Amino acid sequence: VRVTLLTDFGTRDGYVAAMKGAISALAPAAIVDDATHDIAAGDIPAGAWVLAGYWRIYEPPVVHVAVVDPGVGGGRQAIAARADGRLLVGPDNGIFTRVFHAASELQVVRIEGDAFTREAVSSTFHGRDVFAPVAAHLSLGLELERLGPLVDNAVLLELPVPRRDHSHVHGEVIHVDRFGNLITNIPAELAGAGARVIVCGRMCGMARTYSDAPPGELLALDGSRGMLEVSIRDGDAASFLAAGRGAAVIVEAGT
Amino acid sequence: VRVTLLTDFGTRDGYVAAMKGAISALAPAAIVDDATHDIAAGDIPAGAWVLAGYWRIYEPPVVHVAVVDPGVGGGRQAIAARADGRLLVGPDNGIFTRVFHAASELQVVRIEGDAFTREAVSSTFHGRDVFAPVAAHLSLGLELERLGPLVDNAVLLELPVPRRDHSHVHGEVIHVDRFGNLITNIPAELAGAGARVIVCGRMCGMARTYSDAPPGELLALDGSRGMLEVSIRDGDAASFLAAGRGAAVIVEAGT
Amino acid sequence: VRVTLLTDFGTRDGYVAAMKGAISALAPAAIVDDATHDIAAGDIPAGAWVLAGYWRIYEPPVVHVAVVDPGVGGGRQAIAARADGRLLVGPDNGIFTRVFHAASELQVVRIEGDAFTREAVSSTFHGRDVFAPVAAHLSLGLELERLGPLVDNAVLLELPVPRRDHSHVHGEVIHVDRFGNLITNIPAELAGAGARVIVCGRMCGMARTYSDAPPGELLALDGSRGMLEVSIRDGDAASFLAAGRGAAVIVEAGT
Repeated sequence: VRVTLLTDFGTRDGYVAAMKGAISALAPAAIVDDATHDIAAGDIPAGAWVLAGYWRIYEPPVVHVAVVDPGVGGGRQAIAARADGRLLVGPDNGIFTRVFHAASELQVVRIEGDAFTREAVSSTFHGRDVFAPVAAHLSLGLELERLGPLVDNAVLLELPVPRRDHSHVHGEVIHVDRFGNLITNIPAELAGAGARVIVCGRMCGMARTYSDAPPGELLALDGSRGMLEVSIRDGDAASFLAAGRGAAVIVEAGT
Repeated sequence: VRVTLLTDFGTRDGYVAAMKGAISALAPAAIVDDATHDIAAGDIPAGAWVLAGYWRIYEPPVVHVAVVDPGVGGGRQAIAARADGRLLVGPDNGIFTRVFHAASELQVVRIEGDAFTREAVSSTFHGRDVFAPVAAHLSLGLELERLGPLVDNAVLLELPVPRRDHSHVHGEVIHVDRFGNLITNIPAELAGAGARVIVCGRMCGMARTYSDAPPGELLALDGSRGMLEVSIRDGDAASFLAAGRGAAVIVEAGT
Repeated sequence: VRVTLLTDFGTRDGYVAAMKGAISALAPAAIVDDATHDIAAGDIPAGAWVLAGYWRIYEPPVVHVAVVDPGVGGGRQAIAARADGRLLVGPDNGIFTRVFHAASELQVVRIEGDAFTREAVSSTFHGRDVFAPVAAHLSLGLELERLGPLVDNAVLLELPVPRRDHSHVHGEVIHVDRFGNLITNIPAELAGAGARVIVCGRMCGMARTYSDAPPGELLALDGSRGMLEVSIRDGDAASFLAAGRGAAVIVEAGT
């Protein structure tokens, strides 16, 4: 069974290695896939966005562990879930917001007690002491319900929603990727072929793919997850526009 | 079966995780090795150099996926190949140049149609939608020829070739590694024991290993892939010399 | 069998991929876990600290490879060890210091001859040519003693030891993690509930977890490995204090 890891730990301190050790100690045959360890420290919305890009591409059986956990050891709960057959484990702080919104079938449980955690649970590293061993047990077939009671009030982030206004859609940038592409919260189908996209006072047209524009020219397209995306061919749109998450994006319908 | 991944995606956006999901959805038992995701964005020559350092160290069966793909969704083809028994998948943009040059036995096919891709192929993310599923199918034993027609005109990069001139060899730096070592296109056997190496107006002698020189001293040696390499013991030769890819390197034969 | 890799190679040059290839060429079923490749170049003490955080969390059978090896190709020896049932492979330069100190049962051997290395051993890349193949052989069940003679004088780093003085403990920062937490060499049990911790002229109290302090406030706590740690909630203590490895830390007992 596959276990995937998403964290904001980076890899240089060995925290990820400790999680892998804790998983394989219980589930020696588990294959652990690094999803990412480069979520910005404590950036739960980024973690939620990234997780939403792959959780359903994996087919069951799979356990997705997601640990962006600035509140570790405090009052936040630990949860596990089954969403359309995929299992998930992590803190109850909104990291699973987009998964929970997208899932057709969903059960969420609170992780209680110490039956499935490491012997001594630290107050600063639940990735190793709680989430990794719970994921290992789930990968071995543990029933979700054995972890604790069902909950229906898991923490959800408030996600920015695009607003329609006559022939305009007002949205914003929700993620900037490593290429400097500005990914927006505007579904690409709201921007037809002739639409114009305005961001940071610049206007650009719709393209089908990066190479439809000349190098250095701004373009908008249907990104790989169905959202409108603003890019520069062979360039970095985020740097060029000095735009980041939250930047306003307006779509004007074509004529 | 092993599948390796080389990309310029970084890991923070989840693009790599989506590829891993697409592979394991089809080939649940495949072990996916991260080769690297840190190729500079769009740097096909760097990807080609790095890939050439490991593709043949793996023994068959193995599928190497290489996705540095600035032209995704445009006119470039998708290809797969069998090179000395190893399978390869990626864009037809030169990323396989060094593999194709080095291979004794080589078949290359163009990937056509949608029999082995994901249902909906985006125009911006063929890593997930084309190359990952094709790699998964190959790892499960799909015959290369089933993917499409054999081609003999795959795109090849023009690689810089060293030039010999009396007792000199004129080459250049082709890769700078994370330690600041300057790796050149000059085969190390062209630089005998007494040879002198000139780079950025500085001259250095040949050493057998990094620790043959005092700390801080420039030295040249036979790097791990048989090419002449310029280094500084416990230092960063690239920073020290302000030299990068393309910097001229001259070898003067010993006497 | 699991094989873990710790290096200072980064991933962008393909050195790690070459090691993985060398392992899987011999041991196709081995699962290779990346522990970290982000140890600072040549930073043996950091490698030793990070390795110590996970080597024992893995249950046998496991082979931990650790390659931070500025002296590669020079006079340093290559060693392998069995420590409380876990196998280890790497250079004899102190990288295993904390493992060897912590282990109850320990055998260390020098790797001699070329029976278990790659055919041609380069003088600059023993990760690929020596340590990876030796790890692969060990993962397949090779007896440790087959590699070479037992040694009892493996290189050990001199680790900074905290000093007690009346009601004070004088220690220092031994690791700064990616969150900017300052991890000290002072066992947390030496800092009772009412203790005060002084670092860089600033004083802070003990907390149980990060969220016990208001955002932006300095706190000290029992880190995930039992050592006293200085942090800022939702902040970066290392940047805030301009403190790094070696910074003095003083604990004043509570009253």
